Amino acid sequence: MRGELFHPDRGDISLDKVLHALSDPIRRDIARTMHLEGPRVCGQLSYPIAKSTLSHHLRVLREAGLMQTEIRGTTRVITLRREDIDARFPKLLDAVQVTAPAPEEARVAG
Amino acid sequence: MRGELFHPDRGDISLDKVLHALSDPIRRDIARTMHLEGPRVCGQLSYPIAKSTLSHHLRVLREAGLMQTEIRGTTRVITLRREDIDARFPKLLDAVQVTAPAPEEARVAG
Repeated sequence: MRGELFHPDRGDISLDKVLHALSDPIRRDIARTMHLEGPRVCGQLSYPIAKSTLSHHLRVLREAGLMQTEIRGTTRVITLRREDIDARFPKLLDAVQVTAPAPEEARVAG
Repeated sequence: MRGELFHPDRGDISLDKVLHALSDPIRRDIARTMHLEGPRVCGQLSYPIAKSTLSHHLRVLREAGLMQTEIRGTTRVITLRREDIDARFPKLLDAVQVTAPAPEEARVAG
């Protein structure tokens, strides 16, 4: 437990839940944004979806162990738990295109 | 399409569906078995689950593009589409412990 919200300990992070969390393109995009831009205030996230849907996505990411949520007053700051995921499942975040570009993007860039 | 059953073409294989398919431990085990032992006859698979549940898992793997199913008379032979997945999502099958052992297993072996 970290703060008031449930966060699994590193050793309890399950591949089933991580893969389920990453099977949604918006959740992968949130993870990629945290990777590229560092910790984010939840209110800064902008997707064309209902606020309740966004909250659901954030909860799935947090409960899977992909994301840490810190409550600061009235805001919530979210951070990718990259070290924990890398320790448990090496190269996974690269392979699912969170910490590495998609092969298509790599080709365009090259 | 290959044969009578739906199989996505390589270019249509979606990361969303692949990760969803791999988020289940039995589906990962089926994929790992095909990797380690080559093409399998469906009837050789043995899991403590209902036959209908196993059929569901096999359909999810096939429709995601992870597995090719070939109908031979009254049997079905299933094969991991490793080249297709490796081409679309390099290193993913290793990262999800289908084509590489889990870190824990590696430590035990070492």
